[in-house]
Amino acid sequence: MDLKTDIGRIFAHTQSHPQLVHNITNYVTVNDCANVLLAMGSSPIMADDPREVTEITKLCTALVINIGTLNAGTIDSMLKAGGAANEAGRPVVLDPVGAGASRLRTETAQKLVERVHFAAIRGNVSEIMTLAGQAAHTQGVDAADEDKINTANLTAVSAVARRLALELDTVVVISGAIDIITDGETTITVENGHPDMSRISGTGCMLSAMTAAYLAANPLEPVLACTATAVAMGLAGERAVRRVRENALGTGSLRTYIIDEISLLDECKISSLAKVQAVE
Amino acid sequence: MDLKTDIGRIFAHTQSHPQLVHNITNYVTVNDCANVLLAMGSSPIMADDPREVTEITKLCTALVINIGTLNAGTIDSMLKAGGAANEAGRPVVLDPVGAGASRLRTETAQKLVERVHFAAIRGNVSEIMTLAGQAAHTQGVDAADEDKINTANLTAVSAVARRLALELDTVVVISGAIDIITDGETTITVENGHPDMSRISGTGCMLSAMTAAYLAANPLEPVLACTATAVAMGLAGERAVRRVRENALGTGSLRTYIIDEISLLDECKISSLAKVQAVE
Amino acid sequence: MDLKTDIGRIFAHTQSHPQLVHNITNYVTVNDCANVLLAMGSSPIMADDPREVTEITKLCTALVINIGTLNAGTIDSMLKAGGAANEAGRPVVLDPVGAGASRLRTETAQKLVERVHFAAIRGNVSEIMTLAGQAAHTQGVDAADEDKINTANLTAVSAVARRLALELDTVVVISGAIDIITDGETTITVENGHPDMSRISGTGCMLSAMTAAYLAANPLEPVLACTATAVAMGLAGERAVRRVRENALGTGSLRTYIIDEISLLDECKISSLAKVQAVE
Repeated sequence: MDLKTDIGRIFAHTQSHPQLVHNITNYVTVNDCANVLLAMGSSPIMADDPREVTEITKLCTALVINIGTLNAGTIDSMLKAGGAANEAGRPVVLDPVGAGASRLRTETAQKLVERVHFAAIRGNVSEIMTLAGQAAHTQGVDAADEDKINTANLTAVSAVARRLALELDTVVVISGAIDIITDGETTITVENGHPDMSRISGTGCMLSAMTAAYLAANPLEPVLACTATAVAMGLAGERAVRRVRENALGTGSLRTYIIDEISLLDECKISSLAKVQAVE
Repeated sequence: MDLKTDIGRIFAHTQSHPQLVHNITNYVTVNDCANVLLAMGSSPIMADDPREVTEITKLCTALVINIGTLNAGTIDSMLKAGGAANEAGRPVVLDPVGAGASRLRTETAQKLVERVHFAAIRGNVSEIMTLAGQAAHTQGVDAADEDKINTANLTAVSAVARRLALELDTVVVISGAIDIITDGETTITVENGHPDMSRISGTGCMLSAMTAAYLAANPLEPVLACTATAVAMGLAGERAVRRVRENALGTGSLRTYIIDEISLLDECKISSLAKVQAVE
Repeated sequence: MDLKTDIGRIFAHTQSHPQLVHNITNYVTVNDCANVLLAMGSSPIMADDPREVTEITKLCTALVINIGTLNAGTIDSMLKAGGAANEAGRPVVLDPVGAGASRLRTETAQKLVERVHFAAIRGNVSEIMTLAGQAAHTQGVDAADEDKINTANLTAVSAVARRLALELDTVVVISGAIDIITDGETTITVENGHPDMSRISGTGCMLSAMTAAYLAANPLEPVLACTATAVAMGLAGERAVRRVRENALGTGSLRTYIIDEISLLDECKISSLAKVQAVE
């Protein structure tokens, strides 16, 4: 009950405190990231040239680094922007898309966590296990079936996430059927969302972008900020799936409706429908 | 009344004279630009490698240069393509996205206007003020609140736009609650549009892409061509917002419906619903 | 009748055998490609850095190379990934977007077919004629009007396609009002689809991405695999156009609904509504 009220409060505070988020991200879901930030009342700016990222980061209130489509120039830009954001005290979110799928991605993710302090790291379980140095069964950019979080492996996965969070002084967010959010001390699970969300591209990237805005708006409550973001995305997904089914539509509309629902959320929906739980 | 009829005529002429528009643009809204050009009956081609831009520009009837996500290669491509288009007598449109937000963007925009003749330059008021060498309050890629056009500052902003238009022998288009279109001699305002349009990414970029097609179809009436484009986008926005609200949808659908409405416009709607005014 | 049953069977087999498709593609329609692969039950991964493409290709079951927005790094990546896929025995699809529109595109397409074995090459008639060394009337990335396939030129176009297929030991797929699919021995036409599909960007790119998944799922029946893909896309287009018109919507919704319909197809629709014909 109290946790749900907190989540609602964090949502409302974020909505009324628009952030400007610098995105260094992939070209696959970049438009979704821009539109979801606008949908939630914040603003995006995308810039990845090493010659301008420092300036752009300083102009913004948060930074998200997403390694979904790396290339020669962008790794340098990520390090520069990350450093500038750290210096300016702005929260930085890492989305280690496909870590484990190639050495370039795994090593880039590792280099980033070594050189930049992240306020949060959000990925699927395979990506987070890779970052934690655990054997993972990466299959491309999606979590491998063997890795998926369920009630059976929840405790083991949480333990790894907690250790990683403590080691990197960050909030680790693992997205899945059950989301795990932990700073190593406090651990919260979120069960909002719907399996159909995995039928579209971009929900993870959008969640990371939103997380940066939530963290910037709520710097003193990072675990709650990350939890509220996961609740918002999960709830938007549930509602979008319902709308799609009621209208006999498919996955193209689901993508559109998730952004619709993000723009339609309010504190009352969030705090009454959040499926959150603090775990030991 | 006459002006509205003219705008309708320009719209109809553009619709029946499909253009092929070369876009050197950002990777955030590039898909919207492609689809909006097709929606209005023209065709897009995107190409930004310096080895091919000259040939591609020559194949096309118009060029749009959008600096939304600059990188090492593309600035060279923009200069090459701009030169080729000038040589071939094809209209070139500049969208100085984020000019003022970083030195790279401001300097690139300045370099472009020095070396390329633009038939039109379209941006928000912060971007245009930056280009005009005026102090602006850029906040990322959106116009700063302090800069927004209203009846109070309209005269002052118009004066700067007129001077810039004369200096660069171009049509300056400032998008906002009130759009200003001027070649330095004739100045027209457009009040179509809806505030909700700022809740999605891409309306500015789409407008710039469309402007290139309108200019190519109406080379002798550039001010009217730019005005008709602003009316078309504004009207599509108004109608899309209405449809979104009637169906209790959100900003994801708004993006889709704006392109829908662009594809559904006709001369009658344009000339009866245009909110245009010639100003002194 | 038998052919329609076969197409239905290929569809069902592909749906129940999800593939992981590596896409080296353009930044215009990349999001559509990702989402259409998910809509049909497979998964995408996008990666174009030369340092990781070999690894990514080996992780995947199919590769699609789309030259829609070439740049310095990606041509090298295409050759590397193509080589790795050939070595691993994975099907590779080429989409020679805009071949004929610039020397860079034409030469890149030629270099690719010289160095990589493609299981299928899919393009519009202008692009395929260019690859076959025939004079074509390329107009950007769309087929030139003079080239469009109709009953009058079908025989001549088919003959060129058959020769190219034999020469390159591949399946050639020419998309148009009538699609032609041939391996040089067997030639099939598909008449599903709707002219309105040309009012949106991405149907060709999506078809190429889907073709890679169909080929991977049905390695022994490549002509049928390519045919089933063309039927699926054509049918989704027909149904999406109907839905758009029933709701008085436009081309923005058409893009969304095509992906919807891909996600809603079933074997029964496919085998009953396929408009396929084996030709001499």
